[in-house]
Amino acid sequence: MELIIGNKNYSSWSLRAWFMLASFNVDFEETVLPLFTDEFRNKITALSPTGKVPALQDGDLQVWDSLAICEYVNDHYLNGSAWPHNSKSRAIARAICCEMHAGFTALRNEIPMNCRATRYVELSEQAQQDIARIDDLWAALRQEYKADGPWLFGALSIADAMYAPVVSRFKTYGIPLSAESQAYADHVLNSETMQTWYDAALQETLIVKEDEAGTDIVR
Amino acid sequence: MELIIGNKNYSSWSLRAWFMLASFNVDFEETVLPLFTDEFRNKITALSPTGKVPALQDGDLQVWDSLAICEYVNDHYLNGSAWPHNSKSRAIARAICCEMHAGFTALRNEIPMNCRATRYVELSEQAQQDIARIDDLWAALRQEYKADGPWLFGALSIADAMYAPVVSRFKTYGIPLSAESQAYADHVLNSETMQTWYDAALQETLIVKEDEAGTDIVR
Repeated sequence: MELIIGNKNYSSWSLRAWFMLASFNVDFEETVLPLFTDEFRNKITALSPTGKVPALQDGDLQVWDSLAICEYVNDHYLNGSAWPHNSKSRAIARAICCEMHAGFTALRNEIPMNCRATRYVELSEQAQQDIARIDDLWAALRQEYKADGPWLFGALSIADAMYAPVVSRFKTYGIPLSAESQAYADHVLNSETMQTWYDAALQETLIVKEDEAGTDIVR
Repeated sequence: MELIIGNKNYSSWSLRAWFMLASFNVDFEETVLPLFTDEFRNKITALSPTGKVPALQDGDLQVWDSLAICEYVNDHYLNGSAWPHNSKSRAIARAICCEMHAGFTALRNEIPMNCRATRYVELSEQAQQDIARIDDLWAALRQEYKADGPWLFGALSIADAMYAPVVSRFKTYGIPLSAESQAYADHVLNSETMQTWYDAALQETLIVKEDEAGTDIVR
């Protein structure tokens, strides 16, 4: 099984699928295609029907889109165990994943994922509302599920994969969070999966200007 | 179970969830909140954590987002039967649903759902590419699954619910499609579910200016 992704420093959608496969210990190989290059444009057509990353190649099956890849891997390799076991918790988990999948546009535009940077950005009111919503969501879930483990729904789930890039964005731009949410973010950042991703991201040298937002700061 | 939706004439995201519940004969009541009104703003906060429609209230459980509602209903009430039975077909079905859920931005901006109108719009190149992609997708799926039934994957599935609003958009703006795709679109438009939705939409009188695109034409 081959996962096609973009630069680890920048590709937030790639991180979702990669985090899923890596943290659930599913056996896979990765192919990194540098974003906005001729190499990317030349190779992606054969690998992804939308021309976007991430894309998964499993035998003759191509699955595209970060959430669809997570659902496929859960369905086909993990016997459904990557969603909460309880039907109501599973419904909420899918709702917050879908909310991330199609929403938080201001946040995603204004604080692009950029693992190696430490930046300051002046945020719009809409981006601040996006952040407040995520902070409230994480804090409420951690409150509810803390007895079951350190992830959003206690045990590791697709929700953690879908929100992993936001954890990275919040770190880069020094976004202040509630204590519960910061503890969750720290847990994700300190996880073996995220550390492995960061180690590779920090070795990349390609600069994608579109994703270089804000001014450098020292924290 | 109560489904909270926007105006049937305009609310494409609402139609997805409503089409799902209605076409799979799941028992539900609907509450229509007119978009961009004080009534909407006053009532939605208690019904949807994102302040958006559609939202589903099932006992004390609130599920938001069109795709998450479809997944919940499939999971909790339909024993998984609203996705293709075959694992590979299911992966493709989820991928095209996710592609619709987070993509086709140009198409969605330029030809808003407007059931009662017949309009002409000058399309951007990006919107034309969106339409070509959907046409190719529908035609290829119909080619592959036609022996199994008239829907995208033969039997009715969540994919049909997620693409139902696009069928309506294509009708309103007279978008030309390949023969296979047009046959599929006609099947959706002629379905009892879609006819029931249209009957109600045509009785609505509220005008949402933001969704009144293009110039009236007679076809």
